[in-house]
Amino acid sequence: MGKINIQEKLAKFSDHWSPRVIAEMNDYQFKLVKIQGDFVWHNHADTDEVFIVIEGSMRIEFEDETVELSEGEMYVVPKGVSHKPHAEEECKVMLVEPRGVVNTGEAEGDLTASNDVWV
Amino acid sequence: MGKINIQEKLAKFSDHWSPRVIAEMNDYQFKLVKIQGDFVWHNHADTDEVFIVIEGSMRIEFEDETVELSEGEMYVVPKGVSHKPHAEEECKVMLVEPRGVVNTGEAEGDLTASNDVWV
Repeated sequence: MGKINIQEKLAKFSDHWSPRVIAEMNDYQFKLVKIQGDFVWHNHADTDEVFIVIEGSMRIEFEDETVELSEGEMYVVPKGVSHKPHAEEECKVMLVEPRGVVNTGEAEGDLTASNDVWV
Repeated sequence: MGKINIQEKLAKFSDHWSPRVIAEMNDYQFKLVKIQGDFVWHNHADTDEVFIVIEGSMRIEFEDETVELSEGEMYVVPKGVSHKPHAEEECKVMLVEPRGVVNTGEAEGDLTASNDVWV
């Protein structure tokens, strides 16, 4: 695996809520995703999940608060905690999580994306 | 743990080759480090290591090649592979690796930094 240019990878896809893997470290994956609008409430029972905003802004709703994230900000969603990502306008995000994590957690449905799609 | 602003964290320290932890996800840590000049040849026998360049440029020397990295580029150094980071001018880097990894690997010495120093 050579070096990875984040902007070049982002230029290669345009759909929303469909994470692309760009790197693996041990059994963890780094993914890029473009998001816009509302995601579904869900949680990941077995793992924390990292969001790093590359471009734009987003929010993560929790049951008791809402976190606003802008470019250059990151957040660690603890395992088992229900959350709902949202972006008014398109936002480009890096996710870090173990290989095999389903994007919608236990809330499988229309927004559930295939895993291990590399870009 | 609230949201983490990468630039705000970078503004809080100035020494080189001394990683600061900014977030934990499961048993992994996200660290920021400012580098300038030559590091030591070393490897990490048990883990891959991720470099993400936040600002500036750097290179990673391997036995058989040199990889140049600029802002927005990342690289996964495979476990067990000898490497030597270098930056002509100060470069700001995010590292991702398991908790407890020693920055100089097996090559302990003057550049070995304390672990678990948060900023």
